Amino acid sequence: MPVAAKTTLMSKNGFMRATVLHAPRDIRLDDVATPQLMTDTDAIVKVVAACVCGSDLWPYRGINEVKQATRIGHEFVGIVEQVGSAVASVKPGDFVIAPFTYSDNTCPLCKRGVHTSCPIGGFWGNKDRDGNMVDGGQGELVRVPLADGTLVSTYSQPDQELIPHLLCLSDVFPTGHHAAMSAGVTAGSTVAVVGDGAVGLSAVLAAKRLGAAKVVAMSRHADRQQVAREFGADEIIAERGKEGAQMVRELLDGIGADFVLECVGTKDSMNQAVQCARPGGRIGYVGVPHDVELNVPSMFRRNLGIAGGVAPVRNYLDELLPEVLSGALKPGRVFDLVLPLDKVADAYRAMDERTSIKSMLEV
Amino acid sequence: MPVAAKTTLMSKNGFMRATVLHAPRDIRLDDVATPQLMTDTDAIVKVVAACVCGSDLWPYRGINEVKQATRIGHEFVGIVEQVGSAVASVKPGDFVIAPFTYSDNTCPLCKRGVHTSCPIGGFWGNKDRDGNMVDGGQGELVRVPLADGTLVSTYSQPDQELIPHLLCLSDVFPTGHHAAMSAGVTAGSTVAVVGDGAVGLSAVLAAKRLGAAKVVAMSRHADRQQVAREFGADEIIAERGKEGAQMVRELLDGIGADFVLECVGTKDSMNQAVQCARPGGRIGYVGVPHDVELNVPSMFRRNLGIAGGVAPVRNYLDELLPEVLSGALKPGRVFDLVLPLDKVADAYRAMDERTSIKSMLEV
Repeated sequence: MPVAAKTTLMSKNGFMRATVLHAPRDIRLDDVATPQLMTDTDAIVKVVAACVCGSDLWPYRGINEVKQATRIGHEFVGIVEQVGSAVASVKPGDFVIAPFTYSDNTCPLCKRGVHTSCPIGGFWGNKDRDGNMVDGGQGELVRVPLADGTLVSTYSQPDQELIPHLLCLSDVFPTGHHAAMSAGVTAGSTVAVVGDGAVGLSAVLAAKRLGAAKVVAMSRHADRQQVAREFGADEIIAERGKEGAQMVRELLDGIGADFVLECVGTKDSMNQAVQCARPGGRIGYVGVPHDVELNVPSMFRRNLGIAGGVAPVRNYLDELLPEVLSGALKPGRVFDLVLPLDKVADAYRAMDERTSIKSMLEV
Repeated sequence: MPVAAKTTLMSKNGFMRATVLHAPRDIRLDDVATPQLMTDTDAIVKVVAACVCGSDLWPYRGINEVKQATRIGHEFVGIVEQVGSAVASVKPGDFVIAPFTYSDNTCPLCKRGVHTSCPIGGFWGNKDRDGNMVDGGQGELVRVPLADGTLVSTYSQPDQELIPHLLCLSDVFPTGHHAAMSAGVTAGSTVAVVGDGAVGLSAVLAAKRLGAAKVVAMSRHADRQQVAREFGADEIIAERGKEGAQMVRELLDGIGADFVLECVGTKDSMNQAVQCARPGGRIGYVGVPHDVELNVPSMFRRNLGIAGGVAPVRNYLDELLPEVLSGALKPGRVFDLVLPLDKVADAYRAMDERTSIKSMLEV
């Protein structure tokens, strides 16, 4: 069933509803000003679905300081409502995927696939290059800067059942994919995935998609183990740390994994990743690093390499979108909780308390 | 003029001459026991030429502790004198290159190209798996463990003028090549090389050989700048640190280098390398790390990757040797001082005082 392009009933008297983080664990759906086009390269997108990211939990938990009430969310798909006069690649009515950073897609860094370093790009919920606030993605409407460079249209209206899979393209699946691409996963290789959050699970799927012969998912939780299996994991290891790494080495030719995908971002998870890699192995890391250390002399002796970072989602969409539209790639299984937008506080709580792997919000 | 296979006059009364480091800056050519075959996989090689490595200077300078008189040197070429009964790939009279680690070339790690992690391999001048001392490479004769896996024969006797180039294959050129391979240098790319020692200069040559469009060598010394130019460097930057990195960025599309080859191994040189890389760039590191730190959050934001380590020379010889034998690849230009073996102390002093880029010893 195609998604209907609804008329905009959500903007009432210049207000719409959007998620605002007021303080740690105090998240609300507030009435905020309806966004307006600010430049001729902007678009306004009516959000169809958004979701909560593991990285949203850092400020939610107060680990990243919350200085003031702040708009939040950076994963959404929706329908173009309005475009600036210079926007050529999307038009009102188009169903679009918004990568979790906006970018011009034309500068030297975008051309090299590093859209996250686009000098005029930026993040949802932060100020743009002109000092104007950009909306968070967990709301009814979003002003999209650099719409031509940022938004990717599906061209036709997707069926409802495709929405979760398309929503995954805004961040979580390309982030898992980025771990695999940064590590350089090759066909026939062995892969260990550290982290069983939605990104880690996506990394399992990404590694199998790239042809990995054996993927070991490291997970202690039955629900996540199940998704890992569905995504193609060949082995599950519940142990962590040195013990888990020892089991990975035993499973993989006695030497460890050709590629390790680090999808957490803590000192412990990085140590675990390093211990899982065989000499000459490569670690792809996409967990936002918190207190991460690397022992360079140890890496040197073992010829380890590490690459990754904040995923340049836009760079991967031209390749991934057709596979989602055709049904060949189904990353949306990571959503195990779907709520209406006004239940956003429940969506955060469920992820905070780990009763949900990843929460989707229908708008 | 082919190298003559001399008769062994060097072994007198069971002694030969070999380099021994007695204490910091106290290096001597001593009479030591002539090596004997210890297992049926050993070979004895009569050294034709050896050389001094930048890494030899760490113990020479006392930065790495010298606990007792120790054999030293790990780069040599020579002629096979004797082989154990199980040795099949080389025979007496063969001219051979010895990589700076020995390895079996058949185990799972060697098969994956990480010969430096071969579980039964090791380093010259250290104990072997059976607890027997292995000779250093700066001497008249060397017992070579795992001869089949370690030694690479040129099949015919090389001309004298090829010796320096062949000697470079034992360590210095494949190490520069490993920096480029670990970074993943591609045709048409931009490359910055940090370090103008023999390895850094070799990395310039390796990057050009791999098709880099623009290679920036960072060097303050006229003699080394000259070699860098001869090896194909397109630009030379004498400045170091932040200032040098800023100039690299200005030269390279305003964003920095696609690939940076770190050939020093200090905190300062690694910082310089990180600053020279463009977002999404890759750093290949082969400088033995001393007090090196990596700022992981900064790497994450900029999507930097780093890979490298102790170079698995044996892995590269099948590819590189034919190019040296044909004359297409001439890495030997790094030698600017050639001395007889009994002047080994002068060879070390010249490198220590930086009056020589790299010293070759004729045996």
